[in-house]
Amino acid sequence: MQPEEALNSCHRRQRTLHSHQRAKLSASLETKVRMRVWTAVDLCLENSIILNDRLDDQNMHVVVTCTEALLQAPGLPPGPSSGCPCSLPHSESSLSRLLRALLAARSSLELCLFAFSSPQLGRAVQLLHQRGVRVRVITDCDYMALNGSQIGLLRKAGIQVRHDQDLGYMHHKFAIVDKKVLITGSLNWTTQAIQNNRENVLIMEDTEYVRLFLEEFERIWEEFDPTKYSFFPQKHRGH
Amino acid sequence: MQPEEALNSCHRRQRTLHSHQRAKLSASLETKVRMRVWTAVDLCLENSIILNDRLDDQNMHVVVTCTEALLQAPGLPPGPSSGCPCSLPHSESSLSRLLRALLAARSSLELCLFAFSSPQLGRAVQLLHQRGVRVRVITDCDYMALNGSQIGLLRKAGIQVRHDQDLGYMHHKFAIVDKKVLITGSLNWTTQAIQNNRENVLIMEDTEYVRLFLEEFERIWEEFDPTKYSFFPQKHRGH
Repeated sequence: MQPEEALNSCHRRQRTLHSHQRAKLSASLETKVRMRVWTAVDLCLENSIILNDRLDDQNMHVVVTCTEALLQAPGLPPGPSSGCPCSLPHSESSLSRLLRALLAARSSLELCLFAFSSPQLGRAVQLLHQRGVRVRVITDCDYMALNGSQIGLLRKAGIQVRHDQDLGYMHHKFAIVDKKVLITGSLNWTTQAIQNNRENVLIMEDTEYVRLFLEEFERIWEEFDPTKYSFFPQKHRGH
Repeated sequence: MQPEEALNSCHRRQRTLHSHQRAKLSASLETKVRMRVWTAVDLCLENSIILNDRLDDQNMHVVVTCTEALLQAPGLPPGPSSGCPCSLPHSESSLSRLLRALLAARSSLELCLFAFSSPQLGRAVQLLHQRGVRVRVITDCDYMALNGSQIGLLRKAGIQVRHDQDLGYMHHKFAIVDKKVLITGSLNWTTQAIQNNRENVLIMEDTEYVRLFLEEFERIWEEFDPTKYSFFPQKHRGH
């Protein structure tokens, strides 16, 4: 894989450094991107909470890892990275852990997400759909219309998506895996949020929390049934 | 208290109804606001999780309650509503429960909030500061500059506030009460979010979660030390 492809396929993102903080990127990637600093989320408590990495003044770029190995094996359980020759690190990262938690789904995945534009997370959801996992997505009508949203791709792939038609935001950011694991927190599923923001994600196997969030999902799912949409004033047809 | 004052002091918010959904507001308030539908958050699991109310088609306006009783008693423990003659309901609501969880603080309150513009939550934080609780606030530099932010009022009251100077967002939305209770979720502390959005808030007394979020708070607090700010290129002074 060429560096440019690695850049695109791994969706490396960066943020601008102050002039005195500029860090050197590898020469193969430097020409394609502005000088920025890498950040990422990281897992702080095994299988329980993801908090973002803070910047280390001595090591200003925390490199986002390649997640191709996780995402290129439809039908196979997620395994350790292998075989990808791209120039990104292939070690574990918080994104890879989040992907792994999702890709563990065997029967169902409920997503209730204000914003969903991360290509890697989008590919993971499509992989699960291809594997026969029942995927349902609830999202916000405003954000899904923006460029970069994954919602159109998910719908094109045959995944059920419902959205609000409210003025308020559908601001949840949670996922439920196999009706057993709840993934929730501050993180919108965008590359910006994953790589640039300070965020937290909880991954909980607590039965009561899962039940409550699942109830919330089903409630919203029913409410957002497209047959109930009312974009236009109801017409009174004579007969 | 006159209806107009109640409207202002209780910061009632609404959202626009579709024409066929218009619900009647009480006559005393109707002239001041557009026709909208009330929503609110509600507590689903005792002292553990707050999820927003869904709209009920049979009862389109879920009325936000008055929280004056909680907020007008500096030096006293929070108690049941009494004495306020305003026209809003004085029953328990999710906002009042969130306020109660915060006002339970006796020694310390750490706030790490992307957005903070709710006047009621702002007053609660100021009350705690007046009571001698050590309050520290971390927020996002972009949001705090917007109209309606509570950050300026908190600073004016003598409360310590630190903010990022990053391009990425400080996107956490959590509070830690007395280093024992963690309040976290999707909810930004804005009236819009409290009353119009679908949101979730977890209130957890789990030692391990509190410890991890407190560590995250202390890490960010140190990093956002104003003496480390570098808005301008560093000058090399000769001597």
